[in-house]
Amino acid sequence: MTTIREVATLAEVSTATVSRVLNNNSNVKADTKKRVEDAIERLNYHPNDVARTLYKGQSKIIALFVPDIMNPYYPELARAVEDVTNDQNYTFVLCNTDGDNQKEQAYRKALKQKKVDGIIIVSSTITEEEASALTTPTVLLDRKITSNISSVTVNNREGAREAVTFLKSLGCAKVAHISGPQQDTNARSRRDGYLDVVKNEKWFQQDYIVSGDYNFEAAQQATKDLLTRHPEIEGLFVGNDLMGVAALKTAQDLGIRVPEQLSIIAFDGITLGKTAIPSLTTMAQPIYDIGVCAANILLEQINEKATKTYHKEFSVELIERDSTKKRERT
Amino acid sequence: MTTIREVATLAEVSTATVSRVLNNNSNVKADTKKRVEDAIERLNYHPNDVARTLYKGQSKIIALFVPDIMNPYYPELARAVEDVTNDQNYTFVLCNTDGDNQKEQAYRKALKQKKVDGIIIVSSTITEEEASALTTPTVLLDRKITSNISSVTVNNREGAREAVTFLKSLGCAKVAHISGPQQDTNARSRRDGYLDVVKNEKWFQQDYIVSGDYNFEAAQQATKDLLTRHPEIEGLFVGNDLMGVAALKTAQDLGIRVPEQLSIIAFDGITLGKTAIPSLTTMAQPIYDIGVCAANILLEQINEKATKTYHKEFSVELIERDSTKKRERT
Repeated sequence: MTTIREVATLAEVSTATVSRVLNNNSNVKADTKKRVEDAIERLNYHPNDVARTLYKGQSKIIALFVPDIMNPYYPELARAVEDVTNDQNYTFVLCNTDGDNQKEQAYRKALKQKKVDGIIIVSSTITEEEASALTTPTVLLDRKITSNISSVTVNNREGAREAVTFLKSLGCAKVAHISGPQQDTNARSRRDGYLDVVKNEKWFQQDYIVSGDYNFEAAQQATKDLLTRHPEIEGLFVGNDLMGVAALKTAQDLGIRVPEQLSIIAFDGITLGKTAIPSLTTMAQPIYDIGVCAANILLEQINEKATKTYHKEFSVELIERDSTKKRERT
Repeated sequence: MTTIREVATLAEVSTATVSRVLNNNSNVKADTKKRVEDAIERLNYHPNDVARTLYKGQSKIIALFVPDIMNPYYPELARAVEDVTNDQNYTFVLCNTDGDNQKEQAYRKALKQKKVDGIIIVSSTITEEEASALTTPTVLLDRKITSNISSVTVNNREGAREAVTFLKSLGCAKVAHISGPQQDTNARSRRDGYLDVVKNEKWFQQDYIVSGDYNFEAAQQATKDLLTRHPEIEGLFVGNDLMGVAALKTAQDLGIRVPEQLSIIAFDGITLGKTAIPSLTTMAQPIYDIGVCAANILLEQINEKATKTYHKEFSVELIERDSTKKRERT
C-alpha cells in the first residue's frame, strides 16, 4: 500500500503539503498542486478514510432512520437521500427502527461511535427532550418537533381538506375516513383536515372515522366494517395509499363498484396506487424531492457547521385517477 | 470523554487488560474481567469505533448493493440483511448501483477506503474477472459467477417450468411469455424454463415471447402488442410480479377477463401481487430468508476468516391466487 510519505517524496514536497492538497486547501501553489496530484495518480495512492476520520472526526457517513423500508413510502425517500449523499461522496447507512424508541437510541449510540456526520430521522416516537439533546447534525422528516432541529414536512391538514372537498365537489353526499395510527402526527393532521370539512355537516357522525392503522389487512377489516354498517357512504378519504388499495379491494369484494357507487381518494402518491385496478386517486407528496431537500439541508449543516436550522414544508398535489368520478344522480 | 486509561486506573489493571476484556479475549481472569466491566459501566466508557477500526482493520460495516431500492423486490431483501447485521452490531450500508458497472466499481473503491467488512451484491454486470479479484468478503445474490465467491440463488428455470406446467394443467391451450431483460441471468433462466415446456408444442411460435424489461410501462406495452396480435392466448407466464400486475391491468383495459378468459402467473412473490385486483398467482421466492441466508454466510466468512464458500439455492413455491383458474370449455 502506498503511503503519504512516498507521495511527498515523489512530488518533492512535505507530507503536510500532500495533506493540504488532499483536503482541497487553497493555500497551495498551482504547480505544486499539479505535482502532488500527478504523484498521487502515478503511485495509485488512496488516502485511508479511517485514519482521516480519526484525525478530522468526520466519517463521510450519513444515516437515514425509517420505521421499515418495506413500507412502500420509504424506498423512494431512501433512494433520494442516497443519490444526494453518494453524489457528495458520503456513504449511506439505512436503519429500520420499527418505530421503537429503544431501537432508535441503540442506533444513535452505535452511529456516534462511528462518528457518523449526520442523520435524517423519520420517527413518531422521538421526544422533544431527545431531539434537543442531539449533538450530531440531524434533520427530522414528517414532524417538526422543536425549532432547534431542521425539519421537512408536508401540509397534511390542508391536503386532507382538499381531498375531502374534492369528494364533495364530485357529488358524494356522505364522506367517511379511514385513519392512520393516532400516535403519528401526520395521521392526526390528516384526520383533523377531514374533520375541518365535515364536522359541521348534518349527516356527520363520529363512527364515520375508522382506524386502519396504516396497515393493509387492518384497513381491509376497517373498510368492511364501515361499509357494511354504513352503505350510504359515497366517498372515502383514506389516510394513505396502502390503505387506499386495501379499501378498493374490499369494496370490490363487497360488490360495491368503484368509482360508480363509491369514490376513493387516498394520500402519499406511492407507485402502488398507480398500479392498482382501478388506479387510485391521491394527494401526492413529492417524495423524491422531500428526500433531496432533507439531504441537502443536512449536508449544509455538516459542511458549514451552521447553527442555522430550516423548516421546509412541501405541498401535496391532487392526482386524479380512476377511483373517483362525478356522481350521476338519477 | 472517558479514556481507556481512566478505566484501567479505576479497575487497577493495565490498559492492555482493558483492551483484552473489550475484545472478549478469554485470557483474563473472571474477577479481573468483572472489575473492568464495572469500571466501564461506572465511567460510562465507550470505546471509539474509529480507533478500533484503524487498529484491527475491521469497521463493523456491511454493505448491500442493489440495482434500485425502488424496485419492490429489494426492500424486503434489504430489511432481512439489515435485521441480521444489526443483530450482530454491524452497521448496514445501502448502495443503489442502477446496474451500472462503473457505479459499482466506485462504490467498491469507496467502501474499501472505509475498511468495510463485507459486501452482498445483486449485480447483473459484475464480471468473473472482477469477482475473482475481490479482496473483501463477498456474497453474490441471484447469480453464481465463480466457485470462489459464495452465492445465494433460486431455481429460476425449474420454477418457470412449474409455472407453465401449472397453466397447462388449468387447460390453457396456448401459453405466452413476457420476459425480463436478457442480460439478466434470472430473466434468461425463466425464459429457458418456459421454452423447456412449450418449445416442442405444435402451436408454439417465437413471437409468443415478448420483452417487458422488468419494467411496468414496458410490460404494459408488450402485453398490449402480444394480446392484440394473438387473441388466442389463454395463459401468460410473466417474468416477474411487477410486470405481472402490468399485464393484469392491460388485459382489463383490452376488455379481457382475468382469470375467466386469460390466466396469468408471474414470479417473485412481492407484496404488490397480493394487493392487486385480482390478486396475482405467482412463483414466490422466500425473499426474506434469502437475505438472512446471504447475511449469515457473509458474517461467517468475516468472523471465521473462512476460505470456505457456499452456494445455496432456494426453491420457489407456487402461490395460487385469483389471477388463474381452471378453464371451462363449452
